[in-house]
Amino acid sequence: MMEDLSEFYSASARVMSRSLIRELLKLTRAKNIISFAGGLPDPSTFPVDELKAITLAVLDREPQLALQYGPTEGDARLRDELVRWMAKDGITVTRDQVLVTIGSQQGLDIVGRVFLDPGDVVIVERPSYMAALQVFRSYRAEMVGVEQDDDGLRPERLEETLARLARSGKRVKLLYAVPDFQNPSGVTLSGPRRQAVLDLARAHHLLVVEDSPYRELRFEGTAPPPLAALDRDGRVIYLSTFSKTLCPGMRIAWIAARGEIIQSFVTAKQGMDLCCPAFTQAIAAEFCARGHLPERIPQITALYRRKRDVMLDTLAREMPDGVTWTRPAGGLFLWVRLPEGMDAEQLLRPAVEEEGVAYVAGSGFHADGGGKNTLRLNFSFPSEANIDEGIRRLARLVRRRLPTLTTTG
Amino acid sequence: MMEDLSEFYSASARVMSRSLIRELLKLTRAKNIISFAGGLPDPSTFPVDELKAITLAVLDREPQLALQYGPTEGDARLRDELVRWMAKDGITVTRDQVLVTIGSQQGLDIVGRVFLDPGDVVIVERPSYMAALQVFRSYRAEMVGVEQDDDGLRPERLEETLARLARSGKRVKLLYAVPDFQNPSGVTLSGPRRQAVLDLARAHHLLVVEDSPYRELRFEGTAPPPLAALDRDGRVIYLSTFSKTLCPGMRIAWIAARGEIIQSFVTAKQGMDLCCPAFTQAIAAEFCARGHLPERIPQITALYRRKRDVMLDTLAREMPDGVTWTRPAGGLFLWVRLPEGMDAEQLLRPAVEEEGVAYVAGSGFHADGGGKNTLRLNFSFPSEANIDEGIRRLARLVRRRLPTLTTTG
Repeated sequence: MMEDLSEFYSASARVMSRSLIRELLKLTRAKNIISFAGGLPDPSTFPVDELKAITLAVLDREPQLALQYGPTEGDARLRDELVRWMAKDGITVTRDQVLVTIGSQQGLDIVGRVFLDPGDVVIVERPSYMAALQVFRSYRAEMVGVEQDDDGLRPERLEETLARLARSGKRVKLLYAVPDFQNPSGVTLSGPRRQAVLDLARAHHLLVVEDSPYRELRFEGTAPPPLAALDRDGRVIYLSTFSKTLCPGMRIAWIAARGEIIQSFVTAKQGMDLCCPAFTQAIAAEFCARGHLPERIPQITALYRRKRDVMLDTLAREMPDGVTWTRPAGGLFLWVRLPEGMDAEQLLRPAVEEEGVAYVAGSGFHADGGGKNTLRLNFSFPSEANIDEGIRRLARLVRRRLPTLTTTG
Repeated sequence: MMEDLSEFYSASARVMSRSLIRELLKLTRAKNIISFAGGLPDPSTFPVDELKAITLAVLDREPQLALQYGPTEGDARLRDELVRWMAKDGITVTRDQVLVTIGSQQGLDIVGRVFLDPGDVVIVERPSYMAALQVFRSYRAEMVGVEQDDDGLRPERLEETLARLARSGKRVKLLYAVPDFQNPSGVTLSGPRRQAVLDLARAHHLLVVEDSPYRELRFEGTAPPPLAALDRDGRVIYLSTFSKTLCPGMRIAWIAARGEIIQSFVTAKQGMDLCCPAFTQAIAAEFCARGHLPERIPQITALYRRKRDVMLDTLAREMPDGVTWTRPAGGLFLWVRLPEGMDAEQLLRPAVEEEGVAYVAGSGFHADGGGKNTLRLNFSFPSEANIDEGIRRLARLVRRRLPTLTTTG
């Protein structure tokens, strides 16, 4: 028998933790429950017929390229399409400033690998995207959360935090933000605050990681420009993806940043996987070239807007006083705050076992372990009928478990 | 303007180096030269018609799965097929002992992430696979090379090296080996030596990373069992891939190891990219299920055997005395040793510019920077006519540059 492995694990492996969400997804798949826990697109939005036609065309035209190794930077035609795609949002980059990645998760991992040493500080929103916290933590960085409200990150709180950290002598390298329809909260950083955040990043010499997977999924209102479009000095590292606009199953995502940064990222990616699949990249490039991407986004947003509305309506109808939630203008998620004293993490097991409904408890999205009374709900994947029924179940449980203080209030 | 980035880079980023091979590939693509530098399969072996039929079938049958996020471990059907595929070589694992990766390169990166801390020692063959050296180096591990001959790694040298390292107090964690048709040398570790290597690994408490991308491409003779099949105590981490048997453009590879190790790898991969593309995995699973894999390998090996023979014949005819080379019984590569005093790295530019032929200099495959008079030649990608012409060109250059001592000898 092999000796104990515990002495073999690296310092990084010792601080890695399993994604609670992904572990939970397994449980919820096994049972007949209504899950608001995932972050999956609705599969009815997948462009199956277009992908059939495009795959055949690609395999007819260029199998020697589509089935071969490709450049680490990514398929050149795809990068050209991505340059055009970002230009509509005011992001002006060249092909050499774009790197194709396996999902934005790989983009986050590359950022961590290239920029983070143990003890470095990353400023994050509070709450923030759980998988980003996990990957930065695996580089043994320290995450410091800054409060947000319905207009996103609060610049005055950011300023206080940066001043405090400067006094402490800690090395703050990155500000990580999801400015549009944030995962998990659903809130969007307002236009005026975007400039303020960038100004603070400049004053404190931070790189800004703008993670923007949901930007295209706007239901209403006008989009403020991406941080990357406001950036005047090559400070912003922009991450985006086709997972929510084409489909997740291709894992097509990308990073745009100044050339020097992309060059260091390409070197890192060579060691990480050599290159992304040429096959899926060729398909995605052709999908863009045929104009399918802009033509289908209105259908996706219309569907998700209806689902969000059902969720908002049912929450308003069913939830007791003392429970509040965000009203996202786009994206996939909505954020619920239970009365103080309630613990969403403890409530999860009875939710699944007694009511057959699942969500993600909010504490995992908090760098400091706070947010015990919060939870994240996904509205893109479940059907409208299941959203209605699932929220009824959840509300029933919440009412049953309300602290006495609140029910008598 | 943004401040200087040099203070932002992590310690890991500071030791990363670009792959000489991949940089060179760009040069050689730009010019009209015959390149033995790459490691690409011959695109005529790509199963285009089968992939068209399978893609349509997958998109008809299960678009909601093939285009969605999948489990981090990998597609369950694909893992079941991989379990069966490995069983023919005597490797007995269950589905839970298999993790699908983006190429074997990601497998190597995961091994490094989970097991290597700065200063840890990895034993490698001398020469060894360049991209493995690079990724382990990015974790700031120390690589120690052990000499091999035409039967692969020399166990007595391994034993000496391990004894010396034990006396030095260094932490030796891994032995990294490519036992079948090694990249770069083309040599195969003999059957008796495999057991000896495993015995030494046990005695010195090492994990063994068996990287086996070329095993299926045997031209002649009988295959010794994989180290993973001889392993009695869960010490071997086995890496394999479909890049050389199906095609590289899907980036389908996998790791097989004891369950505890796979569990820690799954946790690491969650942070690295969440999951591999479900689309390419579903296609690969169906490709296996239809039995295409075993039916096409004889054609691939027949083609590469002919190409190897052309290369061996032309080398024998054209190269001057004092130049030697390996005679691989499979795989993609052959290893040339020039007379002492010649420098293959310095010879590369005149090779490309004066003769229009490219190769990879051997020093990059040496953990200690040795091997200056060696070079790697790939025979799978160039046509038979180009192999003949390219070796003539290379031999002409070598004859022209032979040290005086040798030409008069």
